[in-house]
Order: sequence, then structure tokens, then C-alpha cells
Amino acid sequence: MTVIRVINPNSNKAVTDGLAASLKHFAVPGRLDIVCDTLEAGPIGIESQRDMDAVTLPLLARMKARKADAYVIACFSDPGLALCRSEIDAPVFGIMESSMAMALTRGDLFGIIALSKNAVRRHRRIIRGLGLLPRMAGERPVDTSVADSAKPEAFDSLARAGLTLTEEDAADVLIMGCAGMARHRAMLEATCKVPVIDPTQAAVSLAKGALLASINV
Amino acid sequence: MTVIRVINPNSNKAVTDGLAASLKHFAVPGRLDIVCDTLEAGPIGIESQRDMDAVTLPLLARMKARKADAYVIACFSDPGLALCRSEIDAPVFGIMESSMAMALTRGDLFGIIALSKNAVRRHRRIIRGLGLLPRMAGERPVDTSVADSAKPEAFDSLARAGLTLTEEDAADVLIMGCAGMARHRAMLEATCKVPVIDPTQAAVSLAKGALLASINV
Amino acid sequence: MTVIRVINPNSNKAVTDGLAASLKHFAVPGRLDIVCDTLEAGPIGIESQRDMDAVTLPLLARMKARKADAYVIACFSDPGLALCRSEIDAPVFGIMESSMAMALTRGDLFGIIALSKNAVRRHRRIIRGLGLLPRMAGERPVDTSVADSAKPEAFDSLARAGLTLTEEDAADVLIMGCAGMARHRAMLEATCKVPVIDPTQAAVSLAKGALLASINV
Amino acid sequence: MTVIRVINPNSNKAVTDGLAASLKHFAVPGRLDIVCDTLEAGPIGIESQRDMDAVTLPLLARMKARKADAYVIACFSDPGLALCRSEIDAPVFGIMESSMAMALTRGDLFGIIALSKNAVRRHRRIIRGLGLLPRMAGERPVDTSVADSAKPEAFDSLARAGLTLTEEDAADVLIMGCAGMARHRAMLEATCKVPVIDPTQAAVSLAKGALLASINV
Amino acid sequence: MTVIRVINPNSNKAVTDGLAASLKHFAVPGRLDIVCDTLEAGPIGIESQRDMDAVTLPLLARMKARKADAYVIACFSDPGLALCRSEIDAPVFGIMESSMAMALTRGDLFGIIALSKNAVRRHRRIIRGLGLLPRMAGERPVDTSVADSAKPEAFDSLARAGLTLTEEDAADVLIMGCAGMARHRAMLEATCKVPVIDPTQAAVSLAKGALLASINV
Amino acid sequence: MTVIRVINPNSNKAVTDGLAASLKHFAVPGRLDIVCDTLEAGPIGIESQRDMDAVTLPLLARMKARKADAYVIACFSDPGLALCRSEIDAPVFGIMESSMAMALTRGDLFGIIALSKNAVRRHRRIIRGLGLLPRMAGERPVDTSVADSAKPEAFDSLARAGLTLTEEDAADVLIMGCAGMARHRAMLEATCKVPVIDPTQAAVSLAKGALLASINV
Repeated sequence: MTVIRVINPNSNKAVTDGLAASLKHFAVPGRLDIVCDTLEAGPIGIESQRDMDAVTLPLLARMKARKADAYVIACFSDPGLALCRSEIDAPVFGIMESSMAMALTRGDLFGIIALSKNAVRRHRRIIRGLGLLPRMAGERPVDTSVADSAKPEAFDSLARAGLTLTEEDAADVLIMGCAGMARHRAMLEATCKVPVIDPTQAAVSLAKGALLASINV
Repeated sequence: MTVIRVINPNSNKAVTDGLAASLKHFAVPGRLDIVCDTLEAGPIGIESQRDMDAVTLPLLARMKARKADAYVIACFSDPGLALCRSEIDAPVFGIMESSMAMALTRGDLFGIIALSKNAVRRHRRIIRGLGLLPRMAGERPVDTSVADSAKPEAFDSLARAGLTLTEEDAADVLIMGCAGMARHRAMLEATCKVPVIDPTQAAVSLAKGALLASINV
Repeated sequence: MTVIRVINPNSNKAVTDGLAASLKHFAVPGRLDIVCDTLEAGPIGIESQRDMDAVTLPLLARMKARKADAYVIACFSDPGLALCRSEIDAPVFGIMESSMAMALTRGDLFGIIALSKNAVRRHRRIIRGLGLLPRMAGERPVDTSVADSAKPEAFDSLARAGLTLTEEDAADVLIMGCAGMARHRAMLEATCKVPVIDPTQAAVSLAKGALLASINV
Repeated sequence: MTVIRVINPNSNKAVTDGLAASLKHFAVPGRLDIVCDTLEAGPIGIESQRDMDAVTLPLLARMKARKADAYVIACFSDPGLALCRSEIDAPVFGIMESSMAMALTRGDLFGIIALSKNAVRRHRRIIRGLGLLPRMAGERPVDTSVADSAKPEAFDSLARAGLTLTEEDAADVLIMGCAGMARHRAMLEATCKVPVIDPTQAAVSLAKGALLASINV
Repeated sequence: MTVIRVINPNSNKAVTDGLAASLKHFAVPGRLDIVCDTLEAGPIGIESQRDMDAVTLPLLARMKARKADAYVIACFSDPGLALCRSEIDAPVFGIMESSMAMALTRGDLFGIIALSKNAVRRHRRIIRGLGLLPRMAGERPVDTSVADSAKPEAFDSLARAGLTLTEEDAADVLIMGCAGMARHRAMLEATCKVPVIDPTQAAVSLAKGALLASINV
Repeated sequence: MTVIRVINPNSNKAVTDGLAASLKHFAVPGRLDIVCDTLEAGPIGIESQRDMDAVTLPLLARMKARKADAYVIACFSDPGLALCRSEIDAPVFGIMESSMAMALTRGDLFGIIALSKNAVRRHRRIIRGLGLLPRMAGERPVDTSVADSAKPEAFDSLARAGLTLTEEDAADVLIMGCAGMARHRAMLEATCKVPVIDPTQAAVSLAKGALLASINV
């Protein structure tokens, strides 16, 4: 049995449960399992550079402690991605990087719905480092927390940000910029009339692709 | 039953059979089927701009004639991709674009093993148009045909190109630049010591991700 | 006698006549002739990706059937340009590419007046592929058809788009983004106070340059 | 009668004569005249930053003293181009900028044959400022003077540089990086098998295009 | 005694005095002296391309006439920088280039407060030539002269431009785009809540760094 | 008394002593003090992603424990820079970022002499994130450790890398890519005939500039 381990680096079990729900159709019964883990040592939400840097080493420790065939780091700023890749033999995917990779195949310019103005600033340098700024229409913050973004009542502000991105910034595909927003995906897509990408689903899709390629000799 | 239709735009049935073999583990029994089609109207291999432009309209006609939930155009130059996307409601994936999206998550600089010097020239403008040249280490031609690249004896020249890309051009992930090269993937990976991406497997992985996200409401 | 063949890939004879009028001073009596052709097989206006891909092979066929020393494809999306260049020995010019080349020598940032939002989207990837996005101030659609853009009453909306490009987007040179707009050039220049480039005139100028260089041994 | 004034900013009358010879077919008898001027105050060849900056104000003075409908500054580093454009109402063309604009329509990557290593260094920042480095395959110096580059015996070293650019650097169009090299154009084209652009011919072609557009109301 | 010579290329002695005042703490008593010079031959303010080109050769002459261990050209458009560097052995710093170098270490996106719309246009090509446009949030003109920008009453318009840059354009560090604005630095920083860089102070800091490194063997 | 605290994040006291020696002329007696600290909790050399991520939080803790007016993180990969900037009010400088800022004012293309192939790979993404890859001629590894690079016998391999960068890669300014290489600066400059930048000296120069500007109200 092949296993993809999705690690939620915040300690909010509700977010992990949301991840598991959003991934329930991504497992392949009898062949490929998807396990969602909570990093209990993490903060309740990763919302600052400090939160990011605090989980880097714990993430690596968790991967070393709990084996898997591939790993997904389920926080949109991709904390610990460089470290885990440098020390872990299995492929490691960050959900931010993966969501942009997926978005490149669904439209010409992607827009990101972010949690906060600070997140936008943090992401910009990462996205520039990936060389993908020329494909970004914009990133718009909704000013909420990881936990609150997962609640039904967050939908309206996400939709407003999404519509600004499509109508003013010319985005033709949207990325939800937080691991906790999965429940809003289908409704956002219906409202904004462009593909909407959940970053964890994107990362798991890429992880599955890498693993199935290895199996398929 | 969800269906991904992979269309080989050349008329070489052996290439289509190779595609089907390379994707056999990517279907999900009872839930997601992968159908590989040959475009009988296509040339025996797509090796020139003329070959590309000749299959554009037939590809669209085929998608309109044979319904699916997502389509993959299985030729590395992504012929007809813009057209099919503009006319077909279902998501359409090109294997070149998809392979680069996947590669972005497996290394910093990708190298492409191409069929010919002409292909390299043709690809460069497409890759620049995608804004991804800054992530390309290089593209090296092996000077062969689509049909020949699928044969076991092609391996040595593919491996030489791959090693040049990793050792001289600093590629840390390789892309096989033709739909017919799938059989060489595992051996190339063992030889070159970096992840090697089969473009059709990459496109199917992304297509699956898009479809599973829609199912997973 | 040297001949430049300007092919209007739409079947609207009025557009071809407009091209001929706009080029009447570009011929060199007794030395260089400019012939304007209508591609009868084309759609009445090229306004979608489908329209573009539909004229690709007919354009090549026309060039093979009617010899010339250089060719101009007189549709702003440059349909068939890659194909014709790969099969025709004579130089082939696209009016979109040529208009941007000319614009680079008349200002720092060019603005494009486009027919429609869809055209803007289609052009963006082409312009990125040419590496010229850093020189583009913006592209503004006027939401009209090829045929209507050629009429006197289109002037006001073209001027509004032009002024937005110069005043808000900082364009210091304007490109008329359709082969049919030639009659508006001088008035737009007077209104917007920056050089305004007709794309077909730009392409013919470059074609003449290439041919005269060959003659001038 | 419309007049294009081509100013050779060096004081070498032989170079001016070469320019006139290379442009003899670009005039339109009875309609458009091309006048080649020598800037007697200039150095014998413009080969350093000092040479460039020394001719800036004299170039402007010359344009103010001798009227024309358009001007061409016939030195490959485009000295005085920004100044003359800011003070002269008529369009002003630099031969370096013009040659690259022309090259963009003849191939995907241009290569420049330069006089010296210092010229390469000086040009690089200008080309980056124009945003055109992504379209440059490379620039190769031949280590000669303006005067010597115009002599028949310079051909071999120009051809060697050209072949390095096409074979090693993947240039598919070449630019002769000095106003004095015009006589070598046809032979270089025959030897290197790609279009070869003389920069003064390119600038005059663009100037003619701008003027004919104004005439053609 | 090591000497840095700061040359004000305009003939406004009040600006030179302002420079000297803004640098009074940058000298190192007994070790490193900073001398501020007025280029009497310069215009009263450098506000056009002509002003820039007019001071190029006089700047070089001044450097040759009055020796120093390093030079700073204290005009924000960096006139004569390429020339002086090519002829002078000592390091030469331009205040525009230096201010951007400093800004790169104080924020992700810099904003520039410029004197005029024309200055913005002139700077854009220089900044593109330096490859730094991707780090620029924007440049906003205040429409004043060099002399007036140095007066206390200029503060309000500078502050307005600064706040537009931080609030609308997302600048997180500001550059004062003229040598004469030094007196406003601290108050602008207090008002805009981001680091504000005086370009001459930046250039002198870099010059000191280069000289101290040489001394520190 | 103003204090700049330079923190060596590795625990090798010899490296810290080297830093202090390289900075002895950068202090301003009686006004500005430079204190060099060893982070005892750090590894003996920072040579992997793990080493980098391990010192991130300790660096922040050290800054909070030992106050200063500005901080310099003296490790070429700039570990902890984003974190410290987000939590510390005083300006924080990384030596890699600072060295490139300084290099931009000393030449057009910088070359970096790195410790190892892995460092080159790690740096590339950071430099791309800073938007500075277009100004990099190349980065060449010498395959040594932090400690060994500080020894006299390392000079030959540093010089070989430097000459490759200037002669093959066209670098016109060199950066020593490790905090421990300071002793080689002058000799490298003499050998390679281009300015050579010690990154810690660059960072301290920028820090001094920021502090002196604040003092100079």
C-alpha cells in the first residue's frame, strides 16, 4: 500500500479534519492511501514568519518519524519545504507551489485569495523566487485567520476577493491561499466562473502522479 | 464513471499503445477511466510546424465527437491546445505544459530531452510564452523520430542527453520531450539520478486532480 | 519587379480595400509592388482562436500558389505565422509582431487598442512569447468587430481607449490592434498626441527593408 | 520631397560613403530622399564611452541646423538618441535599436557581431534597458576598429563570429554591430545561412515607414 | 586622509550646502573626509535630458582636475556615470543607482518620489537597464523643481506621493528621487512608516564601504 | 554610542575573529561601535539547508537578548533574515543580499565564489527571489568548508574560481560567497583585476549608512 502523508503544520485539528474531507476521493482504495496528520507542536494557525520558521524542524522530525511514500506540507506558505526536500528521500510537495503549478495548466493568469496583507508580502518573494510572478494576476487579502477562513460565513469575503481578481486583475484561474478553505471551492467556482484550485488537492494530485509513475514500470 | 480521454494526435497506433501501457496504473477501477485514442487523420509523427497545425482542427473535432470529462493532447508541442480550450467546456491538458508544471515541483531547473533541433526551436517560444524559461536549464535534442524514440535502442542517446542536462546545464529534474518515450522513464531516472517526468503521466495526473476536485464537493 | 503580397486572411473584401488604400504610398513605382489579396476561404472577421486556426493552412496554400518576394499576414493575431515561416523561403511578416517591433523605436511603452477582451487574452500569451510584455503599457479592448472597427463611427471608442492607454497606463506610442483600423491613424495621432502605428504599414515597411537590403548588394 | 537625414557621428568620410552606397536603393526617386551626413566634429571612430558622450550635443546641434523629416543616428551604440528624441519633433532612429526591432521579425534569437569586448559590455546595459536581452543569443566581438571593419579583409573574422553565434549560441538572425560593415551583409548571409541585418538599412526602413504613414492620410 | 568627493552637477550652491549638511555625520574625523563640490558649469537644476547630457563631459573634467579616492555624482538621473567610470580609476557612484541598491536591503518593493512626469519616464529605462524594475512598486512625480523640492513647504506634496506609493503601490521602502530632498527624510519616514532613503547618503555609504575595504588589508 | 551587532551564526570562534579583523576600520571611534558575536548554539559551519534552518530561531533570540542599533547576519545564505526583520525593530542586514546590493554599484554583472555545488543551488532560488539573477554572471563553487575557506592555502582555488567568473562568465565584479573569506579580498582583487566584495564589509557599510542617516537629522 502506497501512502501519501499530508501534514497540517498547525495544531488545529479541525483544519486537519477539513483536509481529510477535501481529499476523501483522492485515495485509491486498496492501492494508495492518504493520511492526514496534525503537527501538534505547531501554532493554532500559521500566520506569521515566526509561525513558519517555528514548524520547520518539527516538520522534518515528523517526516523522519512517520514514513510515507510522499509528503505534502499543508500550509500555503510552504514552510520547511526546502529543508524537508534536502533531507527526505521521498518526494515532498508544498501546497502553495503545487497550486501554482496546477494553475498554470488551467489559465494564463492566476489570482490568489490570501488571508492577510502580511501573507501577500511573504508570498511575493516566494513566488518571485519560483519565477512565477509573470503569471500572477494579483493576490488579494481577505483579512481573516486560518480557523475563520474555514467557516461557512467566510464565503462572502472570499467571493469578493475572487471577483476582484477576475474582474479587475484579469485572473482566469483562482487559487485559495490557505489549507483551510477547501469547503468553499465549488461555490467559489460557481460564483467567479473560473476554475478554483484548492492547494492541498493540487499537491496531492501531483504526489499521486509522482508515485504512480514510479509504480508504473 | 468519469473518463479522461488521452488523444494521440499522430496516427501511429504503437505510440497510442505505449501511452496506454504507461497509464495503466493511473485509472481508478470503478471510478475513473482513462481512454487512449489515436487520431487516425494525423501524420505518423508530429515533427514539424506543419504536422502541428494539421492536427489542430481534427483534434477539436475529435473532442466534440467523443465526449469525456477531461482531455489530454498527447503530443509534446501541445498542438491545438489553445483552440480546444476555447471551444470545449471540459478541462484540456497539453502534455508539454503539464510536464513543466509537474517539474516545477520536483526541482529548481528542468531539462528537456527533445527529438530534434527544430523541436527545440519550436518549444522555446512556447516556453517563453508560458513565462517558464527562467526555470529551464536547457533543452537537448537527440535527433530521432517519434517512432524511434519509443524503441529500446533509443535509450543510450536519451541518457546521454539527460546526463548533459544534469551535469553541464545544472538540471535537477528531467522531462522526456515526446509522448513516445514513456518506457525509458525509470531507467533514465536510475541513470541520471534526478526525477524524470513522462509528460503524459504528468498531464493525466493534473487532469485527475481537476476531476477529483469537482467530484469532491 | 519586386512584389510584397499582403494577405488579408478574412474574406471581407472591404477590409482588403482598406489595406490597399492605406498602403498606396508604400509601393515604389517601377521597382516594388504591393499586392493585397483576400483569402476568400477565411471567415468574415478573425475574432476567435477558431478563426485563427482555420486560416493557418489556407494561408500557407495561398503563399505557395501565388509567389511573391515577401509576404505579410494582415491579421493582428498573426495566424499561421510560424507555419508559413517554416515552409516558405521568402520572408514572412505578421502585422502584430511587426507593429510591436516598430513601436519599440517610437516610445518606451506601447499600448494596444484591441477589438475585444478575448483578443487581449489571446494576444497576451503571444506577446509574452515574444518577450515584449515588459515594453507593453497595456492593451485596452473597444468591444467591436473587425468590420465595424473600420467604419468612421468607430473613431470615438478607439480614441477613448487610446487616451486611457496614454493617460492611465503611460503608453507613449499606440498600436492599432486590427488590420481594419488604418483610416483612423492620423486622427488618433492628433487626438492622443503620441505616434500611432498601423500594423500593416509597419509590416510592409519591414518587408520593404528586408527586400531592399537584398537588392542593394 | 521628404528627406531622411542619416548622420554618421564619426568624422570618417569613408564610412559615410559606405552608408550612402548601402542605402542607394532605399530612396524613392522623386518622393523620398536619403541624405548621408558626416559629423566632422566627431572622432574618427566611436569606440569608447567617451567617444559616445562627446558626440551627443553635436548631434543635436546638427539636427537643429539641418532640417529633415526624420533622422537616423548611424552609430551602433545609439549615442545621443535620448537627447535628440527629447528635443527634435521629427522621429529619430538609432541604428542599434532599429536593428534589434527588425531582427525580432526575422528570427527568435538574434546574435550581434560587435567590434570589441568593450562594445559588448556597453551594449549589454542598453539592450537590457530596452528589455530585449531575452531575445539575444549572444554578442561576439571581432576586435577591430570601425574603419577596419569596413574593409574587405575584415570578412573572415566577421564570418567566424557569425558562425559562432549561429552554431554555438543558437542565433537564427544576425546583426552587424557597426555602421561600417554594410558591404559584408550579403556574403555573411550566404556564409551563415541566416538573415543578416545591416543596422543602418534597418533604421532607414523604419524611418521610411514612419514617414510614409504620415503621408498616406 | 581618504577623500570622497561629492559633486553636485547643478550650479545651485544651496543644493550643495544641503548635501553637505545631510552628510555631516558621514565623515570620519581624522580618517575620511567628504567634500561637496558645485559644478558651476551646470544648469541651475538638472531637469531634462539636455541638462543631463550637458554635464557629462564637465563632470569627467572635474574628476580629473580634483583628485579623490572615490566620487559621488549627486544628481538622481546619474548623468555621466558610465563615462566617469570608464575613465576614472577611483570608484564612482551615482546616487540613483546607489539608492536602489540600498533600498533592496530595506524592503521588497521600493517606491520613488520623483520631481516630474518626465523624470519618471527618463528613470524607467535606466531602472530597466539595471534590471531592477521587478523590485519597483512605482514612481510618483510631485511636479516641482530641484530648488523647490529642497524647501520646507515641499513636504506636503512629497508626503502625499510617499503615501500613495506605500498604500496603493505596496512600496515598503521609499527613495527620495532628487539630491535636494534630504531635509525631508526623517519627517517622511515618520509620516509614511517605512524606511526612507536619501540617495546621496546611500551613495556615500557605499563609497565609504568600498574605501574602507581597501584600507582594511 | 551607536552599535552594530554582527552575528556569526556558526560556532567557529576563529571565523568570528576573522570578521572582527576585517571590520576593524569600519567602526567610528567614539561614535559607532561594531561588535562581533558568535552564536555558540550554531553548527561549526553553515553548509546545508539544515544548518540554515537550525539557526533561524536562535538568531532571533540572540537579537532580542543583546540589543543593538542594527544587526548583521554574517552567513552568506542569509539564514533567519526574513524572521529577524519581521520581529526586530532595528534594521537587519544579511551579508548575501548586501553583497549583491553593493556589487550592483561596482559592475554590470557580478560573479559569486561559493563554497560548494549545494550552496550554488541554494543561493539560486534566493537570488531569483531577489530579482537579481539578470545581473549575475555566474556562481562557481570551490568545494571547501567554511573553516578551510578562511585559511591562506584556500587562495589558489578561490582565485581560479574568480578568474573563471571574470574570463568565461564575463563578471566585472566578484563577491566572496562566505563570511570567512575576508582575508583573501585584496589579493583576489589584485589577481582578478575587478572589484572584489567581502559580504560582511558590504553589510556593515549599509548598516552604517542606515544608522548615520537616522542620526543626521
